Amino acid sequence: MSNQKTNVAVIGASGYAGAELIRYLLAHPCVRVSCLVSESNAGNPISEVYKGFLGQDLPVCESMDLDSIAARSDIVFQAQGNGVGMKIAEKLLSRGKRMIDVPADFRLKNVETYRRFYNSDHSALEALAEAVYGVPELHAAEIASARLVANPGCYATAAILALAPLVCGKMVDRSTIIVDAKSGVSGAGRSKLDSSGLFCEVNEGFKAYAVATHRHTPEIEQELSVLTGEDVMIQFTPHLVPMNRGILATAYASAPAGSDIGPTNCLQELYSNFYKGKPFVAVLPPGEQPCTKNVFGTNFCHIGVAADQRTNRVIVTCAIDNMGKGAAGQAIQNMNLMLGLPEATGLLAPPVYP
Amino acid sequence: MSNQKTNVAVIGASGYAGAELIRYLLAHPCVRVSCLVSESNAGNPISEVYKGFLGQDLPVCESMDLDSIAARSDIVFQAQGNGVGMKIAEKLLSRGKRMIDVPADFRLKNVETYRRFYNSDHSALEALAEAVYGVPELHAAEIASARLVANPGCYATAAILALAPLVCGKMVDRSTIIVDAKSGVSGAGRSKLDSSGLFCEVNEGFKAYAVATHRHTPEIEQELSVLTGEDVMIQFTPHLVPMNRGILATAYASAPAGSDIGPTNCLQELYSNFYKGKPFVAVLPPGEQPCTKNVFGTNFCHIGVAADQRTNRVIVTCAIDNMGKGAAGQAIQNMNLMLGLPEATGLLAPPVYP
Amino acid sequence: MSNQKTNVAVIGASGYAGAELIRYLLAHPCVRVSCLVSESNAGNPISEVYKGFLGQDLPVCESMDLDSIAARSDIVFQAQGNGVGMKIAEKLLSRGKRMIDVPADFRLKNVETYRRFYNSDHSALEALAEAVYGVPELHAAEIASARLVANPGCYATAAILALAPLVCGKMVDRSTIIVDAKSGVSGAGRSKLDSSGLFCEVNEGFKAYAVATHRHTPEIEQELSVLTGEDVMIQFTPHLVPMNRGILATAYASAPAGSDIGPTNCLQELYSNFYKGKPFVAVLPPGEQPCTKNVFGTNFCHIGVAADQRTNRVIVTCAIDNMGKGAAGQAIQNMNLMLGLPEATGLLAPPVYP
Amino acid sequence: MSNQKTNVAVIGASGYAGAELIRYLLAHPCVRVSCLVSESNAGNPISEVYKGFLGQDLPVCESMDLDSIAARSDIVFQAQGNGVGMKIAEKLLSRGKRMIDVPADFRLKNVETYRRFYNSDHSALEALAEAVYGVPELHAAEIASARLVANPGCYATAAILALAPLVCGKMVDRSTIIVDAKSGVSGAGRSKLDSSGLFCEVNEGFKAYAVATHRHTPEIEQELSVLTGEDVMIQFTPHLVPMNRGILATAYASAPAGSDIGPTNCLQELYSNFYKGKPFVAVLPPGEQPCTKNVFGTNFCHIGVAADQRTNRVIVTCAIDNMGKGAAGQAIQNMNLMLGLPEATGLLAPPVYP
Repeated sequence: MSNQKTNVAVIGASGYAGAELIRYLLAHPCVRVSCLVSESNAGNPISEVYKGFLGQDLPVCESMDLDSIAARSDIVFQAQGNGVGMKIAEKLLSRGKRMIDVPADFRLKNVETYRRFYNSDHSALEALAEAVYGVPELHAAEIASARLVANPGCYATAAILALAPLVCGKMVDRSTIIVDAKSGVSGAGRSKLDSSGLFCEVNEGFKAYAVATHRHTPEIEQELSVLTGEDVMIQFTPHLVPMNRGILATAYASAPAGSDIGPTNCLQELYSNFYKGKPFVAVLPPGEQPCTKNVFGTNFCHIGVAADQRTNRVIVTCAIDNMGKGAAGQAIQNMNLMLGLPEATGLLAPPVYP
Repeated sequence: MSNQKTNVAVIGASGYAGAELIRYLLAHPCVRVSCLVSESNAGNPISEVYKGFLGQDLPVCESMDLDSIAARSDIVFQAQGNGVGMKIAEKLLSRGKRMIDVPADFRLKNVETYRRFYNSDHSALEALAEAVYGVPELHAAEIASARLVANPGCYATAAILALAPLVCGKMVDRSTIIVDAKSGVSGAGRSKLDSSGLFCEVNEGFKAYAVATHRHTPEIEQELSVLTGEDVMIQFTPHLVPMNRGILATAYASAPAGSDIGPTNCLQELYSNFYKGKPFVAVLPPGEQPCTKNVFGTNFCHIGVAADQRTNRVIVTCAIDNMGKGAAGQAIQNMNLMLGLPEATGLLAPPVYP
Repeated sequence: MSNQKTNVAVIGASGYAGAELIRYLLAHPCVRVSCLVSESNAGNPISEVYKGFLGQDLPVCESMDLDSIAARSDIVFQAQGNGVGMKIAEKLLSRGKRMIDVPADFRLKNVETYRRFYNSDHSALEALAEAVYGVPELHAAEIASARLVANPGCYATAAILALAPLVCGKMVDRSTIIVDAKSGVSGAGRSKLDSSGLFCEVNEGFKAYAVATHRHTPEIEQELSVLTGEDVMIQFTPHLVPMNRGILATAYASAPAGSDIGPTNCLQELYSNFYKGKPFVAVLPPGEQPCTKNVFGTNFCHIGVAADQRTNRVIVTCAIDNMGKGAAGQAIQNMNLMLGLPEATGLLAPPVYP
Repeated sequence: MSNQKTNVAVIGASGYAGAELIRYLLAHPCVRVSCLVSESNAGNPISEVYKGFLGQDLPVCESMDLDSIAARSDIVFQAQGNGVGMKIAEKLLSRGKRMIDVPADFRLKNVETYRRFYNSDHSALEALAEAVYGVPELHAAEIASARLVANPGCYATAAILALAPLVCGKMVDRSTIIVDAKSGVSGAGRSKLDSSGLFCEVNEGFKAYAVATHRHTPEIEQELSVLTGEDVMIQFTPHLVPMNRGILATAYASAPAGSDIGPTNCLQELYSNFYKGKPFVAVLPPGEQPCTKNVFGTNFCHIGVAADQRTNRVIVTCAIDNMGKGAAGQAIQNMNLMLGLPEATGLLAPPVYP
């Protein structure tokens, strides 16, 4: 098998998402890392930036050269940042390559919405038109045949997995959906340097940010609208947790007017059935709540469901690792589907605990 | 002034709330700690339990003896745990003493609700009848003349301060209120010992708990109902943050049917006016969000207000220290009112930062 | 290959070391977990204790039954606690099984020393006589043929790897060795429950413990004495770091009387040569210091060497994961040698970072 | 008394040491903050930088103008950074003001050593000549009459307090002293911005730095040499702990050749006597070890002493808050002496715990 390994390139290797991709790729039995692109570390081994890669067999980092990347890779992970994917997607596709864009360039189908939330015009409309939004639990078939996959945002992944069974099943009044989400700090990345990211400023503190304005809002709304066939508008509030990794999304929704939210075990069963056969989603028994620690460093997603008959609401909590199922892990899962491999290939390692 | 210092006793001195009371009392210019009750540490200085009290002038811990406590104290802080206050309140009041109960015994006026949430009958109905719910920003006059003050729950304090201006002003549909709250770990106290409280199990993890069932829910509902004159039912979800101190409550509510939530600056002004002259509540400018770090170790409360005109909701975030404004600090503030002192006496120290 | 997988049992599956063994074993291509022993969790899946194992193919936990374990396993990891290994080792060996004892029963060859440091008599002297101290970098051949391997202590591993090149090379005055070591909290395990292990008590604090009395002291001295052929007495001081995993040992030693410690690069070269071909030990370039984060969750060991010509001392810093190279990882490495596999099989995954 | 309050200025108000000075000054009964200098925040209240100062009565920040500062202040704290003190000290002294320099400009008496460790020439030799090294436990009388006090380094304070009784008493071989020190992250300050200070990079990691080269080394050696009357050369190694505040110094020294280190209780008594009457130093009973948490946010220093008769060494552990006794707290203590106040005035608040 090893002489048939697929060659993959990682653009943006020295960012956190890039490093996490490399970690997953090293554990994958069917691919090899052929190319690591990092402008800031070109010419050096990636272990110059991440000492944890000492002793690993990895190519030296290089500057971006699309022809060279295309010549040596079949799949390209773009993890460098917003705006890079738009510049390179069509060039890679035209060279017969497939690309998974980890940032946000190809997530929003509506270019007006894109402009409003990202303050720039979209410059790769053809690529955008064919891009598939990469939540494997919902769009496996389209991902399998896609040339370009838009890897979902970390918050968006948690929110969509938390809400998909409810909105698909029309179990809730879609105007009442609130997602209160909490993330570890690695989501901010490694290159943003101001005092607000300092250990001392983050440690032992908790706060909300981007209230009513966060960029993942339209992404969640777009996908929930696709699932339900109707426009969905949600309330989304992100918060910063003093820990490195993990997202917990707490989602609220009311039963439709005139109906009853029903007992927890019915809703839990709805979720269990919805995610039956999905290797990375575990729906916890009634009364249990997921903890981000239990999915740390993994591609797993744990979901807890509770019906509150007093208030006629459902409360769903969904835990993922923002770097795993929320970024690099899901990107690998998408790659597996694109390569025709079982979607869990190389992705089943349990969390490092404690 | 010092020869007129009021004598105060702390029951439950070796718990976290007890220790925090001692810390505030040491900084207070008008009181002296006359009596520390701790069954587990009786006969020893409190610095046996908390080495941080080495070098402080404090009485040795003793066992509970109500006559002795009453003989040496004018005000008694009961911080030992749920159920203790019910046993001693009437005895202390009949001896002419005043008491501030830090746990939950006298918070809920409805004994049925008490039984449902605390799994026991209330055994001090007379005391309960006269107890005043101690949020000084709302009930200063009653607190000043009270013999028995029920110190509010930590989550309840944050939720009530976050929502009071809205419900008093009838600015929101009271059936849509959701409070998603997050707390540091000290709220669980020092005596609960199982593996779930271990550093390794808590650190680098985030989770919800007591979804739809938390005991502070009826407390919040009772107080909001008093404020608005109508029954208020809320959704309340607590979460555990891997940090020692701090609560952030994120509260959501929709504009009443047919009205507009209006712009953020109007709501912010409503809050600023509501809390005008309240020394511990700071309403942040539009666009800013409070962080628990900024109230760490203090009795302050920071509030951020945001109107989302897209969804017609208001999102209010409220940061307190669960041990400060959420417990011991507020208890001292109540004591100040009871003693006829300016309510901020001894309580204005800023946070230890970073 | 899979129909030739070696069956391994883990005794003490619900402890931290047990769980870490399971994590490594799941990633190992040549073994399968045939048997998980946990008295406290018998009859339940291990995912009842560690939710992170949801979705993994693992046997249900069971009570200790040596005949049954022996019938289904070729290699037994004993990770339940001190004193258990002594009770079962000879029974397992007599049934033709091989055992790796993760706690301390078979580490100290001198039973007097054992009695002094562990407050009990040794009850398996024959097994002790044949047990091999399992530092693969130093004793690979003996480990390969051993029936019983004593897995080294976490601190001992770090100290021995930090000092072996120096003492073997007689580069330092062996009477001047000081090891100042710092460990994450997981070393205390999951079953010790008192208030000192609470998140709030550990978080944001740092302290020494067991000064001049820690049990790993004789273990380090025994091994360094074996290496140098002379009695070595060291000073060892452990400290607790508010983090989950990782040990950093800072070792000090003076040049022998009359000699010069020499430049850093010579010492660094000595270390590089000493560990040449050892897949898990990386000796950093002069001027660099290892960080525990870079070996988090792994079996790697990073070493920094600095000569201080001003003081004529060498300072060696050595970073491992106390649960990895300091416990379960090293146990797997020992198992690999015992099975005749390449010693790095299944163990090369890089750290989860950040 | 309040109409006689001493006016004090803080230069460098928006750094961590500056903010900590303000916090202590707000709690001080005999001074008022007359002037806050911050170039980066000039024209704004300090609560723009530190929201925790909301509600405090403090002057608006201003740019540096020495005449203006001198006109409005009697004592000036210089906390802006290395190199600033040299520029302003003589100007302030000539205007009849007294100054406490928190950074390193006036700590080293030997200008050659200064040049070597700080890579610049000293430009205020007259001021240097009269500067007093400000450890109040050792130099109270000189501090009281000083016009210029050099506030000691954080590590230096811990090391000197740990070792002073030993070297003064000639209890140890001064060539064997090793100080292995560990600090929280706030020591790095708020203005150094690179990825190494990010929460994600620091959290859950531990490492040494500046091995054999740290700038506090000559400071410690200078002071120990003064105390003992002989040249002392030490080994000093700092480490970074993933917490905000606190230093623990673990100091090692051997008994002089031919003598016995003696029992722990004799050494503990030596320390108790040495620090008798010093309000901020607590020498713990034999067998106890200090924890940084117990001095968090305070000016206290806790010391543990252990004799190891096996190795003939003494191990002293010393815990301080690097921002308190290691910086701002000690500066206030120095100010108290300079003003003829009891040295503990305004400084006795116990730690915020937990």
